[in-house]
Amino acid sequence: MKSLFAFALACSVLAAAETNKPLVIAEQGSFFVGGETKSSNPPDANPAPPPSDVTINQMYVQYQKPVGGGQHAPVVMVHGCCLSSKTWETTPDGRMGWNEYFVRKSRSVYLADQVSRARSGFDATIINAVKSGAAPPSQLPNVLMASHQTSWTLFRFGPTFNTAFPDEQFPVQAADELYKQMIPDVNALLPMPNPTWKNMAALGVQLHGAVLIGHSESGFFPEEAALIDPTGVKGIVSIEMACTTTMTPQQLAIMAKIPILVMFGDHLGDVQGRFGSIWTTNFDTCRKFVQQVTAAGGDAQLMHLPKLGIKGNSHMLMQDKNNLQLADLILAWIDQHVESKKASRPH
Amino acid sequence: MKSLFAFALACSVLAAAETNKPLVIAEQGSFFVGGETKSSNPPDANPAPPPSDVTINQMYVQYQKPVGGGQHAPVVMVHGCCLSSKTWETTPDGRMGWNEYFVRKSRSVYLADQVSRARSGFDATIINAVKSGAAPPSQLPNVLMASHQTSWTLFRFGPTFNTAFPDEQFPVQAADELYKQMIPDVNALLPMPNPTWKNMAALGVQLHGAVLIGHSESGFFPEEAALIDPTGVKGIVSIEMACTTTMTPQQLAIMAKIPILVMFGDHLGDVQGRFGSIWTTNFDTCRKFVQQVTAAGGDAQLMHLPKLGIKGNSHMLMQDKNNLQLADLILAWIDQHVESKKASRPH
Repeated sequence: MKSLFAFALACSVLAAAETNKPLVIAEQGSFFVGGETKSSNPPDANPAPPPSDVTINQMYVQYQKPVGGGQHAPVVMVHGCCLSSKTWETTPDGRMGWNEYFVRKSRSVYLADQVSRARSGFDATIINAVKSGAAPPSQLPNVLMASHQTSWTLFRFGPTFNTAFPDEQFPVQAADELYKQMIPDVNALLPMPNPTWKNMAALGVQLHGAVLIGHSESGFFPEEAALIDPTGVKGIVSIEMACTTTMTPQQLAIMAKIPILVMFGDHLGDVQGRFGSIWTTNFDTCRKFVQQVTAAGGDAQLMHLPKLGIKGNSHMLMQDKNNLQLADLILAWIDQHVESKKASRPH
Repeated sequence: MKSLFAFALACSVLAAAETNKPLVIAEQGSFFVGGETKSSNPPDANPAPPPSDVTINQMYVQYQKPVGGGQHAPVVMVHGCCLSSKTWETTPDGRMGWNEYFVRKSRSVYLADQVSRARSGFDATIINAVKSGAAPPSQLPNVLMASHQTSWTLFRFGPTFNTAFPDEQFPVQAADELYKQMIPDVNALLPMPNPTWKNMAALGVQLHGAVLIGHSESGFFPEEAALIDPTGVKGIVSIEMACTTTMTPQQLAIMAKIPILVMFGDHLGDVQGRFGSIWTTNFDTCRKFVQQVTAAGGDAQLMHLPKLGIKGNSHMLMQDKNNLQLADLILAWIDQHVESKKASRPH
């Protein structure tokens, strides 16, 4: 375990030198996956107004492809609650995010804003319907907003608001910059199954196979995507979330065909207040899920960072001070568990 | 005029070759400008709930700096109504957007999501207050959603929905991809002056001077930003919007110190229905504004593309089939009106 830590540290030193060089991009851009047409008119309007169609449930995706990255699987990153793809970019204290680092490590990277968030837009028809009196206020979505106070403890920056753990890896002096990333979450508007799952599965197919990475609210989205269509899901990285422990044997058989890495940081049981037990509970669901997939013959791994000697990590692994070291762990896992199986495990 | 067209056409041919090469980035990332702390609790809750602060009015900015771009002023692009920074990226039919093209032309490019849109988030407290009964439905914002039908005619793809002008430059076969970019606009939630204006001015200062580009809803935002603080506004490109014609002499004196380019496409009076006169009316306000700035001793130019022999352009100049040709016109204008004055017009 210690040697893995030393390896990761050495990689980080190497990375610091590499990350100062110009970034050479073969291709970049953005596009949408999915989307359906819906009338934005009130359903019972009389006389019927002229047609007024909007598109909903589309997923915005922004990508960069490195020069010479063809030998590696593309990576799709999907953010968590009350956040956008900003999650993966420049950290709150101004360091390189995983999006660019993965490109520098020869991976094509696809950042998706969840359906109903950020550049993916949301279905606002109910808001105008309530404003006009055509629908009751109870039909408004419950909009999740992560307050500063909630973020601090739920994300495990320290035991109570504005006090940090002594070994905290999140750059707490820049917490205000994280708070600017926290945006309203209207996932309550979405139908089930969540269109983001379907769109992630479709994106995997479109890319002829990809590693799907989810975090927190979206941590289990890669698994949900694979249950809809595993064809394009070459590997799964699930970070800091609750896992489903009630899959059927048929569902577990699908999971067992996909390498799965589940990652958790430190201080899972060390925060006070209403989030005091949420992370140990979540961790336990994932331990059980990993056991179930393993029992079904799969390649699932639960990586609890403190067990590797990597201490003090928050919920926001991709923004922590050692974020590139953690990225190296993921890259090494992909190389060993996804890429090395290419020849023997064609999908 | 014809020679300018030929020049732009030649540039486009050259551009097609250049745009196939790898893109070399000196630095890229994202950050926020502005933002204020606000309690998300209902104001009159009894007993008072625990503190629950959120950040509002911040502006998300995504940037790329080319290698060796130091001799040019950075460019800030701000999108219009019901859109996000996606506006400037890959076009609906998959061609290169202005964001990348400007970088390839050695400009640092900053894309800002307007405050209350996309990755900048919005202040959702009123939605939860109405849902809980703490505020009446009338306090909900009027959410703007541009329907397919509205977009088609308002953006001048053709005279009526799903019929195109014979010389239409917008890639109408990909209109469905534009509709996916159309997202709810809750600018009605914003205080005045619009925080986006203040944040654009602050970004200009932070960049030690920048050219601000606005479009449609945000077309006049660069001017509004300059009225708040002209220090960082080196040049203004205002595309397809309504202009203010009631500036005071003091305000016009500020405008007169900044080179201003106003651009309009074709078919301004050629659409039918409720948008039949909006563009000729808007155009007239801008003609008057340009006259006023010129009379105040300024360098303001109204570029009406058909007058240059460039026909068929829609409202979405940055997505039209000749978008890179139009970008070349802007780049040439910046070189001549902003950059060439650097030595003689220090701010």
